[in-house]
Amino acid sequence: MNTIRIPYAEMQSLFKRILLKYGLAEEHAEKCAGIFSDNSLEGIYSHGVYRFPRFIDYIKKGYIDVSAKPELIHAAGVLEQWNGNLAPGPLNAEFCTHRAMEIAEENGMGCLAIAETNHWMRGGTYGWQAARNGFVFIGWTNTEANMPAWGAKDRRLGNNPLVFAVPFGKDAIVLDFAMTQFSYGKMEAVQLEGNSLPFPGGFNVEGELTDDPAAILESWRALPIGYWKGAGLSLLLDILATILSAGDSTHKLSKRAAEYGVSQVFIAIDIKKLNNFPAIETAISDIIADLKESVPDGPDAAIRYPGEQILLTRKDNLDNGIPVNKQVWDEITLL
Amino acid sequence: MNTIRIPYAEMQSLFKRILLKYGLAEEHAEKCAGIFSDNSLEGIYSHGVYRFPRFIDYIKKGYIDVSAKPELIHAAGVLEQWNGNLAPGPLNAEFCTHRAMEIAEENGMGCLAIAETNHWMRGGTYGWQAARNGFVFIGWTNTEANMPAWGAKDRRLGNNPLVFAVPFGKDAIVLDFAMTQFSYGKMEAVQLEGNSLPFPGGFNVEGELTDDPAAILESWRALPIGYWKGAGLSLLLDILATILSAGDSTHKLSKRAAEYGVSQVFIAIDIKKLNNFPAIETAISDIIADLKESVPDGPDAAIRYPGEQILLTRKDNLDNGIPVNKQVWDEITLL
Repeated sequence: MNTIRIPYAEMQSLFKRILLKYGLAEEHAEKCAGIFSDNSLEGIYSHGVYRFPRFIDYIKKGYIDVSAKPELIHAAGVLEQWNGNLAPGPLNAEFCTHRAMEIAEENGMGCLAIAETNHWMRGGTYGWQAARNGFVFIGWTNTEANMPAWGAKDRRLGNNPLVFAVPFGKDAIVLDFAMTQFSYGKMEAVQLEGNSLPFPGGFNVEGELTDDPAAILESWRALPIGYWKGAGLSLLLDILATILSAGDSTHKLSKRAAEYGVSQVFIAIDIKKLNNFPAIETAISDIIADLKESVPDGPDAAIRYPGEQILLTRKDNLDNGIPVNKQVWDEITLL
Repeated sequence: MNTIRIPYAEMQSLFKRILLKYGLAEEHAEKCAGIFSDNSLEGIYSHGVYRFPRFIDYIKKGYIDVSAKPELIHAAGVLEQWNGNLAPGPLNAEFCTHRAMEIAEENGMGCLAIAETNHWMRGGTYGWQAARNGFVFIGWTNTEANMPAWGAKDRRLGNNPLVFAVPFGKDAIVLDFAMTQFSYGKMEAVQLEGNSLPFPGGFNVEGELTDDPAAILESWRALPIGYWKGAGLSLLLDILATILSAGDSTHKLSKRAAEYGVSQVFIAIDIKKLNNFPAIETAISDIIADLKESVPDGPDAAIRYPGEQILLTRKDNLDNGIPVNKQVWDEITLL
């Protein structure tokens, strides 16, 4: 693969120019380009630079409405229900995160659910934003069906990414995970390399557990995390996103020509409101210090907390540029 | 195994008599006996009848204080921080669930965290209680360390059960799952039967993934659900329970002679407050109906939603009595 390294500022500037061309307002193009570039900077290329062309394609097809704004449908105490009006997913998600934080600042906790929004790209983005500002964050999205129910062959569950984030020093601990063990993108990449998955990642067409990515890509039977447990969690996250937002479920989304109009939930907790606020940083540091004292399983094992690697990748990519396949980058410049 | 079947009323009555003997007040003995009996009735014997002797043992040892009550430490909007004062875990948990529901009735959502409480037995108990009363429930507990961090050999994470529940008709959809793929109790039972686990459930002492329960019981390396993902979720749940309750983390709990004084979180959402409340039941029914249309993976596959089996077990045990090992039951009658 012919990889080039693009400076952050150059990537952000190109994305912004393209987004302006496709009709986003100045402020929205700036924010959206920032999110795509930050995701790339932090190593989540699949939901950064490599997803950008599809984002533009969805604007062209009308799945994303660049001039739409989220709209309040109903408020009840610390709960708010919004309609995303098919506005760009990252803009809606950033809006919801900040609105949940505002509610939490007043009431300790805030919960927003949004219907008819679009793919938020990397859920962790919003976890980092909230946690860096001193809030606990819990959020999730539903998706189109891409995983079978437990005991089933056909896809009826979403991989419904779920994010938990807590402030940690000047940064954060951020867990951002989908309900499938490996993404289809990851399995395709491992197949191209001619490798096996590091652990079983799905069932083959005979219903046997396998680490062969080709067999899973053929069966479409990606493994839910924790087998039946992840399948159950996917279902509950979809039900909650659907009923809290009054939006569409995985089942309904899957009938569309593409994945748009998803349902999402954003919960923020303001830790400054807690009785033990001054001691929270020490409490978390103690937990992480204990984790780090783990006995590694071999010389190459690294004991990390969720999000720790992100900071190293961020620094490397800031210093040396963001690695991008040259052909993909060239294509983006033509958008 | 010599199994007898005990009528629900007989079990509840015996438990109550014993709890009164060990100092619980009339009302508390009634509630606590009900929770242990209900857990047994619904098939969660490990956290019902088979756990009851240890509950009494912990009272004798002073880990559980039968006369203590939970105490409000701090309230901030819809957040409340309580101290459990080592009162019986099921009583504290039921109290917190109902208090979270009260806050949610006023504000849409309520969140309680409690420090220094005790084992809640089955987390699902509180999910069922909240959901049967029309509330969404999200709750979790930390535990002592019983699972290694990802890439580690020694136990530093808890299995930290997590519960999601939503109302569904007159009943509920309840997901109640621990972060270890299989409990140690389950692995011991499978080992006694001379069987393998249905799926890989941990690592052997050589660090290889295995479905041999004996090898995992030897290594103490139970598999986190979804490999590194469940390890990460365990860590985040512990951090949140610790900081929201101002309580002890898995790390600190693990230094004690036994597991007591854990930290828990209870979140309730009042769905009557939602704009789409009248349509919620239909939305959930549609999702479940779609799930049920899955193509089963073979003639024996049953496509179920979380908690569905519970209702069948409950009916069977109500009609025919709760199955209990006769020797264990005889020992309980002597408590």
